[in-house]
Amino acid sequence: MTAFGFEVLGEDGRARRGRLTTAHGTIETPVFMPVGTAATVKGMTSESVARTGAEIVLANTYHLMLRPGAETVDKLGGLHSFMDWEKPILTDSGGFQVMSLTNLRKLDDTGVEFRSHIDGTKFLLTPERSIEIQNLLDSTVTMVLDECTANGVDEAAAAESMKLSMRWAARCREAFEQRDGYGLFGIVQGSVYPDQRLESAAALVEIGFDGYAVGGLAVGEGQEAMFSVLDVTTPALPTGHPRYLMGVGMPDDIVGAVQRGIDMFDCVLPTRSGRTGQAFTRRGTLNIRNARHAEDPRPLDPESDYPSVGNVSRGYLHHLFKAKEMLGPILLTTHNLHYYQELMRDIRGAIEQGRLDEFAVEFRAQQAQGDIEPL
Amino acid sequence: MTAFGFEVLGEDGRARRGRLTTAHGTIETPVFMPVGTAATVKGMTSESVARTGAEIVLANTYHLMLRPGAETVDKLGGLHSFMDWEKPILTDSGGFQVMSLTNLRKLDDTGVEFRSHIDGTKFLLTPERSIEIQNLLDSTVTMVLDECTANGVDEAAAAESMKLSMRWAARCREAFEQRDGYGLFGIVQGSVYPDQRLESAAALVEIGFDGYAVGGLAVGEGQEAMFSVLDVTTPALPTGHPRYLMGVGMPDDIVGAVQRGIDMFDCVLPTRSGRTGQAFTRRGTLNIRNARHAEDPRPLDPESDYPSVGNVSRGYLHHLFKAKEMLGPILLTTHNLHYYQELMRDIRGAIEQGRLDEFAVEFRAQQAQGDIEPL
Repeated sequence: MTAFGFEVLGEDGRARRGRLTTAHGTIETPVFMPVGTAATVKGMTSESVARTGAEIVLANTYHLMLRPGAETVDKLGGLHSFMDWEKPILTDSGGFQVMSLTNLRKLDDTGVEFRSHIDGTKFLLTPERSIEIQNLLDSTVTMVLDECTANGVDEAAAAESMKLSMRWAARCREAFEQRDGYGLFGIVQGSVYPDQRLESAAALVEIGFDGYAVGGLAVGEGQEAMFSVLDVTTPALPTGHPRYLMGVGMPDDIVGAVQRGIDMFDCVLPTRSGRTGQAFTRRGTLNIRNARHAEDPRPLDPESDYPSVGNVSRGYLHHLFKAKEMLGPILLTTHNLHYYQELMRDIRGAIEQGRLDEFAVEFRAQQAQGDIEPL
Repeated sequence: MTAFGFEVLGEDGRARRGRLTTAHGTIETPVFMPVGTAATVKGMTSESVARTGAEIVLANTYHLMLRPGAETVDKLGGLHSFMDWEKPILTDSGGFQVMSLTNLRKLDDTGVEFRSHIDGTKFLLTPERSIEIQNLLDSTVTMVLDECTANGVDEAAAAESMKLSMRWAARCREAFEQRDGYGLFGIVQGSVYPDQRLESAAALVEIGFDGYAVGGLAVGEGQEAMFSVLDVTTPALPTGHPRYLMGVGMPDDIVGAVQRGIDMFDCVLPTRSGRTGQAFTRRGTLNIRNARHAEDPRPLDPESDYPSVGNVSRGYLHHLFKAKEMLGPILLTTHNLHYYQELMRDIRGAIEQGRLDEFAVEFRAQQAQGDIEPL
């Protein structure tokens, strides 16, 4: 059996080059996790996800508990078998979606009672049930149930919410069934308030987790506020455990967060944008639906060194989106996930060479150039 | 350069085991061609199409002439480069869709005038323009422009329409630019009337084509009538050229048509059905949306000897369709195309062994068993 563990292979400023070992394989960090909400990264086969370089995916407990149900996934062998993905899977706790996407029925110390958006069925999500569901899903990395505060909350409310999250974190730790190679992560809350963040971090470290996430960000506070929170928070987290910034983000956010000591990321941007025709490239984003691409024989990202989507032209991709063909979203999702994995590979290389700050400057300069010139 | 040619490697009754040589590669026949209407087999990358075993795909001239336009495809290097598919491509003439899908403006000896269903632009499709478009598309196999008669047409009307198609066929032959490894196919018309079919076949052979298609079938006449037409028609076609039954069909239609001397097929069934949840298996079709599959850990077709869609269960596929995830249509399309290619492989093997009639009996018996029993 494999112990769940994190090794810091090298450092560059506050950035770390690490390796996470799990029951389902190792993960080189800093890492980006594609989002596979309903046990599928939208538009991708598990094989095509792996071919982008992804070593771990995220799945959403909220969606899976409603459909097909955690017990059904368990009967079908757990999430790895269910979605034909043998590598690690991280699941969130379900709390974020329950509290932001559904009509709340009741939120108290016990947990959250809510109705399914699919058929109105009543559910109760408690710290213990969230852990049980993630156990049934066979998640490699389980997240504690927490409350994610909205942007703009005042400090008193942020403190009260954070304390609730810390009580839930302790109950999750208690409920989590320890298995070789499986891990449980705590989540730092406290909104934009340094004292609350520090208190939250200390509370989690006191309980003891296999990894530490920073939650409650990427909710509209802006990059500067987010980076400020990281500047306060990551130094308060133990160096020997992975740090995960939830729901982030744009390529530029990721580079800056790695510089501030973050090891793990997830975000729907590359997949969601891909479905609407937005492509990430070394020279910023572009929308392939734009008429200027209609007869362009060049690839999406001529400066990329990988053939993310075969030898297709911008003109072909433009055609696919105009004709509403499924292959358009498929290829742009593939491309964007490739882009994100290539970015993480380059970030890891820069840390290894001790030149992450230079890399960040070059990265931002290249992004600022904007898309390649029309032919 | 490669000459376009067809070699009959073996025979079994009227069935032939053949090999078609083209500028873009060889094709083992009998062959099934997946349909890539708008320069994409819906939901599939060109690589995933190739992995199902497909050696040639069909694209629709009507759709491509409207969007992105034949001249645009030409500017982007032709259809092979455009859709990143190096193997052979057969294009239809555009006539079938113009006459069945759009409001006819005028049909006479010159050609067909019609308006685009996308933006109302007026187009004139003549035999010469159809050939020019298919040339711009860089089609490996070009089809003549013809008129496809509706089911139930009387013999006089069928004869008149067939004669128009034969005049157009001669003009297409004249307009076709001969290039090494490229071919032009004539199309036999004449509805269900033996005399008309024989007259049409003789007219085409007199003009001389690289291959001969049987058109005007699979329009609602039923399998028995279709087979009767084939019984009359294929003996009137030269043995040294491939024979293509357009738009067919169900697996059972294909087996029977091969027994009657057909070498090539195309049909939207495996792709269209796959998008709506219908799967083809050795034991007939099933609809994966049916609740009985929800917790079934078994693969779609346990009796198949290829892993068409990885190791996923019926339960997972059911979940994908219920959750309206793109991956459902993607995986079922992949599976169905695999099924069709495996069927053709088995048919070719049976001809080689001189046991196609026995194969057909076994095939129909297995299909009649119906889907595997619920667990």
